[in-house]
Amino acid sequence: MQKITLLGATGSVGLQTLEVIRQQPHEFQLYAMAFGTNTEIAIPIIEEFKPKYIAVKDKETKDYLQTHLSSQPNILSGDEGMSEISTLENVDIVVNAVLGSVGLEPTLHAIRAQKKIAFANKETLVTAGHLVMKEAEKYGVELLPVDSEHAAIHQCLKGERLDEVKRIIITASGGSFRDKTRDELREVTVNQALKHPNWSMGAKITIDSATMMNKGLEVIEAHWLFHMPYEQLDVILHKESIIHSMVEFKDHSLMAQLGTTDMKGPIQYALTYPNRLDISQEKGLNLVDIGKLHFDEMSFERFPCLKMAYDAGRAGGTMPTVLNAANEEAVQQFLNNKISFLAIEDFIQKAMDEHTMVSKPDLTTIVEVDQETRRRVKSYVN
Amino acid sequence: MQKITLLGATGSVGLQTLEVIRQQPHEFQLYAMAFGTNTEIAIPIIEEFKPKYIAVKDKETKDYLQTHLSSQPNILSGDEGMSEISTLENVDIVVNAVLGSVGLEPTLHAIRAQKKIAFANKETLVTAGHLVMKEAEKYGVELLPVDSEHAAIHQCLKGERLDEVKRIIITASGGSFRDKTRDELREVTVNQALKHPNWSMGAKITIDSATMMNKGLEVIEAHWLFHMPYEQLDVILHKESIIHSMVEFKDHSLMAQLGTTDMKGPIQYALTYPNRLDISQEKGLNLVDIGKLHFDEMSFERFPCLKMAYDAGRAGGTMPTVLNAANEEAVQQFLNNKISFLAIEDFIQKAMDEHTMVSKPDLTTIVEVDQETRRRVKSYVN
Repeated sequence: MQKITLLGATGSVGLQTLEVIRQQPHEFQLYAMAFGTNTEIAIPIIEEFKPKYIAVKDKETKDYLQTHLSSQPNILSGDEGMSEISTLENVDIVVNAVLGSVGLEPTLHAIRAQKKIAFANKETLVTAGHLVMKEAEKYGVELLPVDSEHAAIHQCLKGERLDEVKRIIITASGGSFRDKTRDELREVTVNQALKHPNWSMGAKITIDSATMMNKGLEVIEAHWLFHMPYEQLDVILHKESIIHSMVEFKDHSLMAQLGTTDMKGPIQYALTYPNRLDISQEKGLNLVDIGKLHFDEMSFERFPCLKMAYDAGRAGGTMPTVLNAANEEAVQQFLNNKISFLAIEDFIQKAMDEHTMVSKPDLTTIVEVDQETRRRVKSYVN
Repeated sequence: MQKITLLGATGSVGLQTLEVIRQQPHEFQLYAMAFGTNTEIAIPIIEEFKPKYIAVKDKETKDYLQTHLSSQPNILSGDEGMSEISTLENVDIVVNAVLGSVGLEPTLHAIRAQKKIAFANKETLVTAGHLVMKEAEKYGVELLPVDSEHAAIHQCLKGERLDEVKRIIITASGGSFRDKTRDELREVTVNQALKHPNWSMGAKITIDSATMMNKGLEVIEAHWLFHMPYEQLDVILHKESIIHSMVEFKDHSLMAQLGTTDMKGPIQYALTYPNRLDISQEKGLNLVDIGKLHFDEMSFERFPCLKMAYDAGRAGGTMPTVLNAANEEAVQQFLNNKISFLAIEDFIQKAMDEHTMVSKPDLTTIVEVDQETRRRVKSYVN
C-alpha cells in the first residue's frame, strides 16, 4: 500500500488523481492533502478519503474546516504546511498537482526527503529547473512526469540511452483555436477559449493550450526533465492528441506513446512506475475507431507564445521565470475579461523585453522576479 | 569491429545487410557468407567484401567460384557449409537471411555456438519455434528480429515486463491487392502481385504480403520470439507501413515504433543492439510530409491465409510446418504461372485439412512433414 500526499487536491489533476486512488483502494491511500481555499470541493474529499494531514492556504480556511469536518485530522496552514506534508515519514509518493510557482518549495522539500515525486506542476520546472534538477540529482530522486506528453517521452526513453536521442517530438493538439487565423483571434471570447477539443483540464491550462504557451512550458519542462538541449526539442501539430509524444533516435527509429485523452493514464503511470497498473477491465484505445491520425507543421508565426518560450528557455537565467509569471498574470486578466486574447502574448513579450536577465538566479531572486513581473503585467492593463 | 557471417547474401535482406556493412566499414566486417547458386550476384560481393569463408549450395557452384575469383577464400558446399560458417570462432554476429526452412540447422548451430543472431528467416521459427526457442533459452542467446514488425515490437518492449503486456498489435499494409475485393482477386497476375505498395522485398515475401500469409507467419514468429499467446496477438491494417508495430500494456498505454519503409533500419537495429547506430546524416521520417496515418480493421474473410496461420499456430505441433511448406510450394507454383492467386490459399487449407498432426515433433519429423507437404501440394497442381 503506497501512502500518498496530494498537493492541489481540488484542481483538475488533483481530482483525477483521487479518481485513480478511488479505483485502486488496495494500491493507494490518500495520507495527506493540500488545497487552497475551496472547502466546498475539499470537504467531501476529506470525508471520503479521511487523510491524516491537511494543508490549506490560510488560517480562515483552517478554522472553517475544523468546525465543518466529522473527523479530526491534523490541519496545517500557510506555505510551510504544504512542505510539511510533503516530507512526512510515512509518505511514499508526493503528487505535486498545484498550479503555478507556489509548487516550488514543497518540491524541493520532497526531493530532500527522497520521496517518489509525481510531478504535474510544470511552472516549478519552468521557473527554477536548474535548482530543482540539481537537488534531484543530489538526492537521487527521479521526477515522474504526470503531463501526458512527458509521461509519453518517459516511456519512449525506457531502456534507451539519452546520448542516442536525436530529438524529442512533443505533439500539440492546437487547442481551442487551432482552425482560426491570426485575424480571427482578435474577436475570440473567454468561453470559446475554454472549449478544448480533446482534453478536459483546468481553465488556466486550457487557455495556455489555445495560446500554445502550454506547449512552450512543456518544451522547457522537457529540457529539464530529460536533459535535452532546445535544438533537440521539436513540436508538431497532431490534432487528435492520440500520440502523446515521440522520441527519435540517431538511427532514425522513432518511438511513440499512444493513449486515450484521459489524464488518469499518465497519473497512474507516475504512481505505479516502474510497474504498470492492470486496468484491463476499462476501455482502451481503439485505433480502428479513430481511423486516422493527422500531423501538421508547427508555426511560430501562428503561435508566437511558443517562440517566446523557446527564446526564454534558450536565454535561461530569470527569463523563463518572467515568461511564466507574465503568462500566469496575463491569462488571469483574460479569464477576468480585462484583456483580449491576443493581449496575452503582447504582455508576455513586453515583460520579457523589459526584463534585465539575471543568470543562475537563486530562489530569492526567482521569487522577486516572479512578483515584480506580475506587478508589471498588472500595470499594462488599462 | 564486429565480424559477421551472412547467410543468404544474394537475397533481398542479404543485399540490404551488405549495404549496412558498406555504410559502416569501421563497425562491421563481412567475415563469411552463404548463398545458393546465384554466382552472378555473389561474385561482385565477394570481390568487394573479401569474406574469408563462403558456403554455397552445391559442388558445381563451388567449382565455378574457384575458377572465377581473384582471391582464394575457403569455399564450402552443402547444408553443412552454412552450419560451419555459423559457428566460426572469430564470428560475432550471424545474420540469418535465408529463405525458407533451410535456415533451421544453421540457426541451431549458431545458438549452440552462442553467437549473436540477427534473424530474418521467419520460416524457421514457424516450423520449429519450440526447438529453436528451447535451445536459445538453454544457451542464453537472444534472437534479434530483422523483420520490421518484430524489430518494432522488440523496441516497444525495451525496459518493459512481458507480464504487463495486454497485446501485441502487428501492422499490415494490406499488400499489393489491399483495395481489391475477393471477386477481383480471381483475375490477378503474378506481375500485379509483385508490386508491393510500400516495401521493396523479395518475390516470395511480396506474394505472402498480398495473400496476408506474411502477416500470419509474423504472428507465429511473434508468438515464439515474445512468448505471447495467440489471444494476445492482433493484426491491424495500416496502409502507410509507418507504424511498424505496437504493444499495448495492461494500463492501456500503447507503445509504437515508427520508421521509413527501409529494411536497413531493422537490420541496423539488430546488428547494433543494444546500441543504436548514428546515421544522422541520412534522411529520417518526416511525419508532416506524410500527413496522415490510417488504420482499418483486419478481416479473416478477406484474408483467409491469416486465419489459417492463427489456426495452425493454435493447433501447434506439425501444423505450422504444413502451413509454411504448403505456402512455400503454392507460392512457387503461382510465381511459375502454374496456379492462380486464389489457388494458393485453397492449396494451403487443403494440405492442412489432410494432415494428421504430430505434437512436439522432433527435427526429423519436421523435415519429413515439410517434404511430404511439398510433394502433396505439387500433386494438387493439374
